[in-house]
Amino acid sequence: MTSTAPAAGHALRERYDAVRGATERFCEPLEVEDYVVQAMPDASPVKWHLAHVSWFFETLVLREYLDGYTSIDDRYHFLFNSYYNSLGEQFSRPHRGLITRPTVADVQAYRRHVDEHMRELFRRHEELGLAIPADVIEVGLHHEQQHQELMVTDVKSLLALNPLRPAYRAASAAPSGEAPAVEWVGTDEGVRSIGHDGRGFAYDNEGPRHKVFVHAFELASRPVTCGEYLAFMEAGGYQTPEWWLSNGWTTVQERGWSAPEYWEKRDGRWQVFTLAGMRPVDPAEPVCHVSLYEADAYARWAGARLPTEAEWEVVAAEAPVEGTFVESERYHPAPATGSGMQQLFGDVWEWTMSAYGPYPGYRPPEGALGEYNAKFMSSQNVLRGGSCATSQSHIRPSYRNFFYPPDRWQFMGVRLARDAG
Amino acid sequence: MTSTAPAAGHALRERYDAVRGATERFCEPLEVEDYVVQAMPDASPVKWHLAHVSWFFETLVLREYLDGYTSIDDRYHFLFNSYYNSLGEQFSRPHRGLITRPTVADVQAYRRHVDEHMRELFRRHEELGLAIPADVIEVGLHHEQQHQELMVTDVKSLLALNPLRPAYRAASAAPSGEAPAVEWVGTDEGVRSIGHDGRGFAYDNEGPRHKVFVHAFELASRPVTCGEYLAFMEAGGYQTPEWWLSNGWTTVQERGWSAPEYWEKRDGRWQVFTLAGMRPVDPAEPVCHVSLYEADAYARWAGARLPTEAEWEVVAAEAPVEGTFVESERYHPAPATGSGMQQLFGDVWEWTMSAYGPYPGYRPPEGALGEYNAKFMSSQNVLRGGSCATSQSHIRPSYRNFFYPPDRWQFMGVRLARDAG
Amino acid sequence: MTSTAPAAGHALRERYDAVRGATERFCEPLEVEDYVVQAMPDASPVKWHLAHVSWFFETLVLREYLDGYTSIDDRYHFLFNSYYNSLGEQFSRPHRGLITRPTVADVQAYRRHVDEHMRELFRRHEELGLAIPADVIEVGLHHEQQHQELMVTDVKSLLALNPLRPAYRAASAAPSGEAPAVEWVGTDEGVRSIGHDGRGFAYDNEGPRHKVFVHAFELASRPVTCGEYLAFMEAGGYQTPEWWLSNGWTTVQERGWSAPEYWEKRDGRWQVFTLAGMRPVDPAEPVCHVSLYEADAYARWAGARLPTEAEWEVVAAEAPVEGTFVESERYHPAPATGSGMQQLFGDVWEWTMSAYGPYPGYRPPEGALGEYNAKFMSSQNVLRGGSCATSQSHIRPSYRNFFYPPDRWQFMGVRLARDAG
Amino acid sequence: MTSTAPAAGHALRERYDAVRGATERFCEPLEVEDYVVQAMPDASPVKWHLAHVSWFFETLVLREYLDGYTSIDDRYHFLFNSYYNSLGEQFSRPHRGLITRPTVADVQAYRRHVDEHMRELFRRHEELGLAIPADVIEVGLHHEQQHQELMVTDVKSLLALNPLRPAYRAASAAPSGEAPAVEWVGTDEGVRSIGHDGRGFAYDNEGPRHKVFVHAFELASRPVTCGEYLAFMEAGGYQTPEWWLSNGWTTVQERGWSAPEYWEKRDGRWQVFTLAGMRPVDPAEPVCHVSLYEADAYARWAGARLPTEAEWEVVAAEAPVEGTFVESERYHPAPATGSGMQQLFGDVWEWTMSAYGPYPGYRPPEGALGEYNAKFMSSQNVLRGGSCATSQSHIRPSYRNFFYPPDRWQFMGVRLARDAG
Repeated sequence: MTSTAPAAGHALRERYDAVRGATERFCEPLEVEDYVVQAMPDASPVKWHLAHVSWFFETLVLREYLDGYTSIDDRYHFLFNSYYNSLGEQFSRPHRGLITRPTVADVQAYRRHVDEHMRELFRRHEELGLAIPADVIEVGLHHEQQHQELMVTDVKSLLALNPLRPAYRAASAAPSGEAPAVEWVGTDEGVRSIGHDGRGFAYDNEGPRHKVFVHAFELASRPVTCGEYLAFMEAGGYQTPEWWLSNGWTTVQERGWSAPEYWEKRDGRWQVFTLAGMRPVDPAEPVCHVSLYEADAYARWAGARLPTEAEWEVVAAEAPVEGTFVESERYHPAPATGSGMQQLFGDVWEWTMSAYGPYPGYRPPEGALGEYNAKFMSSQNVLRGGSCATSQSHIRPSYRNFFYPPDRWQFMGVRLARDAG
Repeated sequence: MTSTAPAAGHALRERYDAVRGATERFCEPLEVEDYVVQAMPDASPVKWHLAHVSWFFETLVLREYLDGYTSIDDRYHFLFNSYYNSLGEQFSRPHRGLITRPTVADVQAYRRHVDEHMRELFRRHEELGLAIPADVIEVGLHHEQQHQELMVTDVKSLLALNPLRPAYRAASAAPSGEAPAVEWVGTDEGVRSIGHDGRGFAYDNEGPRHKVFVHAFELASRPVTCGEYLAFMEAGGYQTPEWWLSNGWTTVQERGWSAPEYWEKRDGRWQVFTLAGMRPVDPAEPVCHVSLYEADAYARWAGARLPTEAEWEVVAAEAPVEGTFVESERYHPAPATGSGMQQLFGDVWEWTMSAYGPYPGYRPPEGALGEYNAKFMSSQNVLRGGSCATSQSHIRPSYRNFFYPPDRWQFMGVRLARDAG
Repeated sequence: MTSTAPAAGHALRERYDAVRGATERFCEPLEVEDYVVQAMPDASPVKWHLAHVSWFFETLVLREYLDGYTSIDDRYHFLFNSYYNSLGEQFSRPHRGLITRPTVADVQAYRRHVDEHMRELFRRHEELGLAIPADVIEVGLHHEQQHQELMVTDVKSLLALNPLRPAYRAASAAPSGEAPAVEWVGTDEGVRSIGHDGRGFAYDNEGPRHKVFVHAFELASRPVTCGEYLAFMEAGGYQTPEWWLSNGWTTVQERGWSAPEYWEKRDGRWQVFTLAGMRPVDPAEPVCHVSLYEADAYARWAGARLPTEAEWEVVAAEAPVEGTFVESERYHPAPATGSGMQQLFGDVWEWTMSAYGPYPGYRPPEGALGEYNAKFMSSQNVLRGGSCATSQSHIRPSYRNFFYPPDRWQFMGVRLARDAG
Repeated sequence: MTSTAPAAGHALRERYDAVRGATERFCEPLEVEDYVVQAMPDASPVKWHLAHVSWFFETLVLREYLDGYTSIDDRYHFLFNSYYNSLGEQFSRPHRGLITRPTVADVQAYRRHVDEHMRELFRRHEELGLAIPADVIEVGLHHEQQHQELMVTDVKSLLALNPLRPAYRAASAAPSGEAPAVEWVGTDEGVRSIGHDGRGFAYDNEGPRHKVFVHAFELASRPVTCGEYLAFMEAGGYQTPEWWLSNGWTTVQERGWSAPEYWEKRDGRWQVFTLAGMRPVDPAEPVCHVSLYEADAYARWAGARLPTEAEWEVVAAEAPVEGTFVESERYHPAPATGSGMQQLFGDVWEWTMSAYGPYPGYRPPEGALGEYNAKFMSSQNVLRGGSCATSQSHIRPSYRNFFYPPDRWQFMGVRLARDAG
């Protein structure tokens, strides 16, 4: 844990205020009731997210570095720990939605309490030159940005369960048009390096930067669209076991899937639930809320495959970080426009065929932050590039997101790859 | 469905206002968050209770009898139907806690909308002499009183799940003292009549009044106390299969029961969660929150048995309707005092060994109200006498409550009986 | 426990040989494989039944009364105890089908070992005048007859799961014809006595004989037929919640029931699986393999109700014990013929609306036999009269069988009743 | 699909006889009852294995290549298909143990029927020069060898469930001694080639041979022993979440694991169930029947990690295929002896950290054999090297076995690796 000079501390404080403010801005359209309920065990109540991200700063920064700090309520240490075994017992995750007290107002007071003391910490640093754990604070801010994305997707899952299908907020006018044709962009075989190069922030799981042998391949210039996915559905995609992984086919049968999450057929037409309410499926948009199994089956049907994470990163390392991010407040992917490689960043997370695991030479950090990423390196797949619910300041080419193959509630989409030559 | 004269209508309106007001008074100490969550599938959110009892008046009274009535939102008809198949589909019961909209404020507005129109109905009756369905309104008020009791027990189950064990409201000073010794009050064998005699309100399941042969028996003068139940526990009650019904023993094993619901051992002493928070178990109080299985096992251990509902009613028909009711705002049973037959009414519901079924000659009413009681006549046991969460104006000797043998979240207790002679 | 004179002992020995022999005769058509598997947790493997009924004689007779008796394998005491907690731990019931050793041959040797020693006990009694526990042996024989019936129904459930639908044994020629019209036979109201009168064998749960007030009623002269039940099905019986108990409707939905157990629609016609294989449903036969819920829904649809067990017994006490029993080796109910009250005994067990509970003044026997019936007096309903899988020497008017409302794998049918006057 | 010259056909026929004979030899100690039961959904009854491997030859060889072939029973095509969707519907896998007919004798007749016709096919080939699908037959023989291994492990899982813990067969005298100290054998970084090189038989999933960048690493010279694993257990291995993957820790909690599968503590000493019955744990033997989670937690505790499959193969490609195989009829791993790299083959399958997926450029075969391996490339991990239940003629350096992380019923063990330099 290192400290920084006052000038850097000043920038950090501004970033702290910006990130914390963004969290609260997202909540503004919510009713108190919306903060409390947990749509499913994978999701968490908004109230819990709000408290947990403050718990992170309290536990890893204030309790360690701010002399004389006392919590607003010591029981929050247990209630709002997510999964850090090294920091003590945790309240049962699937029951987070059963806790009505502390109330939303209590949690907002908790946030203010933490904010005030974080600002005191910054002040002491800037005015008195006391050291601050800049790297832990940086992790805390990226952590909060991750939870911002989860708040978007968890609120969506909650409102979608309501038979009234209420909107989070009215939609801005949707872009229209037709998606450009797919181009296949090739890369030659060879030993390449992937992983974070040490410039700027990265999570521990993005390193060490290391060599990997990449075989010649081609990557599609944009994600698969709803129109293309509809063609798969109409070709019997959800009825034909030959296109599916065995686990995928079992999942389709058990859960009765016949379309992406949030799609509903009404009067013979496919509609989709968005944070702006129900509306017709737009064939030009990237398909999203599909599982790894659906992404993989689509790819097999289309005569292609999913990329590996190394293939994706080799291409993305050259691309600008542009696309539809959470800052757009669109909360839904937008159709691609123009030509050449597009939408690698933003819009939809792109499933890769790579299982999530440690890079060669990887060692988790000491202490609680060692639990941040390492212990999840089993049975999940890597997704790359961020989505329309990700902050632009949070994503980068080496960023590794990870979810279980059947998961669909994130903004997950599909970009195809194929062997070259 | 009959109507009443304006004078009776006036009394009915006053009763309407009183019952509706009592519902709202109970809610006053609650936070918005507390209205939304469902602690378990058997329970419902307070918000749902508030809406459903208004739905009852809207559906069975206003839509039928108030010319020109329109609902505040037609979708509520589906959302707030509990189990009336003849009135259409219902929203999934175990998912009632996932619905954040309509909000609590919306539901309060819905209640006001219904109240205004009910008052308009009363006005037209009193001023214009238009007929009103007095008996349906009477059912609606008793229905709301039943839900008031469920609100008490459902809020209790919700707050008890919270690791902070928050109180609904601070306790009034608790009565103290020692329970009087049990007396055994005998009744001779013979043909008796039980069931409602037609004077005053009763549910359909309380009739017809009919003959039954009752064998000579004795009934305990008061319910089993916590002190007596502790003796059973200390004698290995929860570890000895011989005292248990087979289903009961299986339930004890599967759920890991070792004490009544809401009891917790802390530092070697038994504490109990009440709506006023945690406090030590009082040996003088009636034991409550026990299942039929526990009541039955206790009785067997004590060399006695549970009464039949006929035995109970034969004795209770002679007794005054006195005890601790919801009007006391105690929300917890009180120790018995004095001598002779006590606490038949109020304090704790008393499990009987009688399965809940139709009386000889019973026919359910026509229409939706035929679903009120009849279809539940399977696999449940009858409880008698009301509890500390029951309104005194709602209970009577012929009243038949019914729950499943493993249920514990109501204020359920034990009164012993034994064969005479 | 009393003993009998040698003459009675002689008759008992002959009965012992007859009952034990009947068990083995039933097994003759089975393959070794058929003895081992358990179709569902409610059922047991034939091998287990064969061993358990011998365990009963070994444990309650030989170990207690035959000096110097030693078991063939002491571990069988644990393996083949069904549910007698007072006799020690039991092997997990749902896993009985996972035990391949002891083999079928081992269990047959165990039976022979017990038989040889039981005959030695009889010999010592007859030749030496030593006392024998005649009443326990009598219970053991009735116990074995109960398991004979379970073997029939458990083998049926097993073969029915096999997609090849193998027959237990080829059918004898089936009777044909048309069922006689139903007559309604009336009984006046009054105080009656039911329960076993002490002449001949009875289980503890059939007593004490006691008074009960019976209201005037009428009983149908024969069970409901398949043809009548088909009319209910064609009238939307399985699609109309109004005819069902609430638990029944839930069960219909959860289990996807649309016909009695073992019925299958093939090429538009209803077939039924019998122990002689698949064949068309015969409209004249009593419907069987229906749950209490289906029996109750049928009755409601037909404008009638199920009888109480007192009503049934009052009528049956006057009737001869005639019908289709296991001795016919038909293993399926036969159509009624003739006129007047018919088929009260044999053919199909008749669901009653009475919950299974203790009669007034009932006390379970001391010791292990106290667990035989008493601890099951919860959440089950009484069935009366025996079935085509019951031995004629095992049934009587006061006999109380009991199963859970959703159970269907026994030969369970429906006789209607209705209020008179 | 190619054919071979008669000489090769002759060798193939001899191999056919050898493999088929080995299957039957394994069954000799079994009772009929042991063939029928399925210990758990992952396992299959021996009877099913016996039939399924014959079904494979019938379906993919005889029906396609032997003119005039007819099956002994056409319904077996459905009953004994495992998972080939392209060959039609399959009988439910978890219910394989409920099918008592066809009997064991029927299945043995089915095997003989298939064998006779396979020999007729070989005869026509050798005598008449007709083509045979040598490569499909070769797959069929390896397929049968895989099922031989499953029969060993499935019989073990079945006998272990029996409270009598019966042995499959008495043990031969066990080797004794102490395991040699671990040596760490290093390999330099660089681009290597792995995957099958086309010489001899291999499954499709072992190719294509391809380049991979391997970082410098060290591999332990022998698997982890029971003694070493006991030290982990005594250090609180099963009580310390920090050493576990998150999914692993959840699994430990949910399943209550505190030792490898088949270990039982009796009178304070660890015993292990083997196919020769219960005996004390031998500290010198390789630990086996551990999940990936346990292997990974052990490695983390020991300051090491699991190897990747590429690392393992780079080393194993240089090693002789020696170790304890099924031909030893030991059915249990043996202690290592001597020095240098040992037991890469046989004894225990070695978990790798590599998720099972397609090699670069992999394409599944056309037709039913395309379902053999490809569709399982999700959520499983690769194991390498074979076990004491694997045939020596079935294993090779490029062989990829795969199981789910929590699986334990195969002979799965642990070899450690670590980063070099």
